[in-house]
Amino acid sequence: MSYDALTHHFEQQHHLQHLGAICGWDQATMMPTGGSQARAEAMSTLAILSHQQLQAPQLADWFASAEQSPLTPEQTVSLQEMRRQWRDATMLPSDLVGAFSLAGSRCEHAWRSLRPANDWAGFLPLFEEVVNLSQQVAAARAEVLGLSRYDSLLEQFEPGMRSSTLNQVFTEVKQWLPTLISKVQDKQSHDTVLSPQGPFATEQQRALGLDVMRLLGFDFNHGRLDVSVHPFCGGVSEDVRLTTRYDEQDVAQALMGVIHETGHARYEQGLPVQWRKLPVGQARSMGIHESQSLFFEMQLARHPAFIKQLSPLLTQHFGDQAAFDPNNLAQLYTRVQPGFIRVDADEVTYPAHVMLRYEIERDLIEGKLAAKDVPECWDQLMQTYLGLSTKGNYKDGCMQDIHWTDGSFGYFPSYTLGAMYAAQQASAMQAQLGPLDTLIEQNLPSIFDWLQHNIWQHASLLDTDTLITQACGQPLNASAFKQHLEQRYLG
Amino acid sequence: MSYDALTHHFEQQHHLQHLGAICGWDQATMMPTGGSQARAEAMSTLAILSHQQLQAPQLADWFASAEQSPLTPEQTVSLQEMRRQWRDATMLPSDLVGAFSLAGSRCEHAWRSLRPANDWAGFLPLFEEVVNLSQQVAAARAEVLGLSRYDSLLEQFEPGMRSSTLNQVFTEVKQWLPTLISKVQDKQSHDTVLSPQGPFATEQQRALGLDVMRLLGFDFNHGRLDVSVHPFCGGVSEDVRLTTRYDEQDVAQALMGVIHETGHARYEQGLPVQWRKLPVGQARSMGIHESQSLFFEMQLARHPAFIKQLSPLLTQHFGDQAAFDPNNLAQLYTRVQPGFIRVDADEVTYPAHVMLRYEIERDLIEGKLAAKDVPECWDQLMQTYLGLSTKGNYKDGCMQDIHWTDGSFGYFPSYTLGAMYAAQQASAMQAQLGPLDTLIEQNLPSIFDWLQHNIWQHASLLDTDTLITQACGQPLNASAFKQHLEQRYLG
Repeated sequence: MSYDALTHHFEQQHHLQHLGAICGWDQATMMPTGGSQARAEAMSTLAILSHQQLQAPQLADWFASAEQSPLTPEQTVSLQEMRRQWRDATMLPSDLVGAFSLAGSRCEHAWRSLRPANDWAGFLPLFEEVVNLSQQVAAARAEVLGLSRYDSLLEQFEPGMRSSTLNQVFTEVKQWLPTLISKVQDKQSHDTVLSPQGPFATEQQRALGLDVMRLLGFDFNHGRLDVSVHPFCGGVSEDVRLTTRYDEQDVAQALMGVIHETGHARYEQGLPVQWRKLPVGQARSMGIHESQSLFFEMQLARHPAFIKQLSPLLTQHFGDQAAFDPNNLAQLYTRVQPGFIRVDADEVTYPAHVMLRYEIERDLIEGKLAAKDVPECWDQLMQTYLGLSTKGNYKDGCMQDIHWTDGSFGYFPSYTLGAMYAAQQASAMQAQLGPLDTLIEQNLPSIFDWLQHNIWQHASLLDTDTLITQACGQPLNASAFKQHLEQRYLG
Repeated sequence: MSYDALTHHFEQQHHLQHLGAICGWDQATMMPTGGSQARAEAMSTLAILSHQQLQAPQLADWFASAEQSPLTPEQTVSLQEMRRQWRDATMLPSDLVGAFSLAGSRCEHAWRSLRPANDWAGFLPLFEEVVNLSQQVAAARAEVLGLSRYDSLLEQFEPGMRSSTLNQVFTEVKQWLPTLISKVQDKQSHDTVLSPQGPFATEQQRALGLDVMRLLGFDFNHGRLDVSVHPFCGGVSEDVRLTTRYDEQDVAQALMGVIHETGHARYEQGLPVQWRKLPVGQARSMGIHESQSLFFEMQLARHPAFIKQLSPLLTQHFGDQAAFDPNNLAQLYTRVQPGFIRVDADEVTYPAHVMLRYEIERDLIEGKLAAKDVPECWDQLMQTYLGLSTKGNYKDGCMQDIHWTDGSFGYFPSYTLGAMYAAQQASAMQAQLGPLDTLIEQNLPSIFDWLQHNIWQHASLLDTDTLITQACGQPLNASAFKQHLEQRYLG
């Protein structure tokens, strides 16, 4: 039967991805430098083989025939998700795929030294080539998918999401965010916050991280914690490889990093076992994934009731100090300060960084903004949203992120979609189970059970809109997020 | 050109093997238990894909055409080695491959609990099935290769080696070994040897292991040291993954284990860079591989001059104790004691364990011995060679090794071939460079340079006979091994 043949074919794809995920993790955590060339070649062969498998000529027939077969509703969705993956892998001409990948590698590689040198002039021609090829990719995708160019890229990370929706929800956020930021800054201007005094030995930080992961229900029979320069949550659902990095002077940041990645990890570990090897059993979207990490980090871990549980753990591992007092920790973890760098931004100013990037990348892809004009546009929007100027400061401005260097246009919105979904989930959860502080104090597992029931177990069996509407009672909107920020920062 | 097409094809094979080697290492060192099912499936898909690639229909034409092309001498050998790998992958009917693999998995899995239970009756039917299918595999291989059944299996591990040669060389060893063992036992009977007193913390043992690996020239830019239940040398030449295990009560054993694996590792790291991705660039045979680990462990590390360098390292990591005195360490590392277990055997009694297994497996495969009669045969040979009875003691007798459970018949001789090759290499090296004690004391790198020049750089570019004859001035023989044992243990 064609459906079974497709299933077998995509399970094999999944096995190849498994090997790539483990070797990718190894590359970031274990591999000595001298192994990198051989590894890059092996990974490239894997990518080629995996792509060849997806392009096997019999697949088109199998899809046509499977779509005529009697299938259960879940099998029908599974078939759709297989088709989506197949379509994504086959819709672009291979010379465009090659040129796009090469331009991205070149630009990203050069960026690693051009950014610290603040060298916009050196970066621009490489970046222009990436933008140019991204536009071509977008045009080709748009043609097949019947979407606008930018939406066709967005579709890779957020299936079903459209820029019309983003425009609407971001327009709303822009109306209240700048005012909110300045109110919070006023309110916090007289606070005295103590920073924990290090050094904090790496081994102890690791032990603390493991304790907190256990508290958050991470399953160590199906995963582990290691160290990498850029923290990530990798591996496979059955064996989630979470990483962090340690700064001996700063225990607070690594701790929150571990909690953030644990949110990603629990989503992966909570995906339905029976669908794990197929596209329909994968995480729904980058935004939903980020909603889980941000639920863990922002809704849960920075909540005063959870901080009350973190405080004694810190004391246990590093001895008593005034900065570990729950009230001080809560203030430390909710400091708001507009800054240049997205990855260092707090929960309140973060959406400004994302909206700015969204507007620029949308206009770049749609051909309404030239690559050479990005710095000026960046500076203007930074002034508008956060009151900061990046004139001449490219390295802390439009050259700060890796995303655009390899053509990952359409990715940035996922961060703020995640924050809004997380707030919607926290709001719905409280409406159903009672106030979060009581849940945290008395029944932490009930929080995870709610997420398992409402988000994790559905994998990609529901489209994002249905998933969120079913879990939260309403589709994507910024109200819960606004309410959450007002309550936490002005309440 | 067909030769280039084949080269590309086999480089892809090599990349797939790379991914398998890293994921295999991960499985043994890093993977949480819960990940094992998914990993087994992913590895199985990799094996299937890799096998499919080797069976691609165009390969036969490419070989035929490449063999008519003008090639350099090295390319000609490379082509031969590709053909050998291709031939091995395609000569068996796939239903036999499947049945053999399944029977092996079943028997090996059951063995893990049947061995500790000393349950020969439970083991026998599973073992009979493995022997039966191994005979079928041997018959099919023998037909294609024009070899005897057993030789056709031996050919997998020791290309070019024949049982006629093994019979001859082992017959010679059997003439002097039992006498030598009893003489050594007599000589050592009045020795008092101190055992180092633990505990020896794992972290310190690891630091010591790293120091010794550095001393032995292991390249940490292309490899690392980790922990696994069964130590091995894995990974790829560009990134060698060496493992060991630590016993907090016994520092001496883990240390020798690390040195042994470092011998394997330096061979891998020393393979010629320009041939690394092709069969001709791989290690020559299991016996040659073992000759490098045994050169490091037996010829080099147990030499009194090297023990003089180990002694201060032990003191540095664990403080002073009488057992770390070089003379005591040398005695400790050259204790001879006939025992039941091959993997615990010393250098002198080890060949007896191998010859016994060789005779039994050769007769099993040739149909001259029935599986049910193995215990009796084992007991007789143990009595003859080592004066020990294993009657009724299956777990320390014929059920002690994993090799036969999955049908790896033809592998055991490699261990003693390795010991003999290592002794031949040490003898030739000394004839060329001067006495080993002077080299160890004054110029350790010259030893590694000799091995690089005479063994490592040749990979599979020479057949084993030529490799050894060219390096040592004569083909395989037991004289140097006998001389080495007599000099070390009776001199």
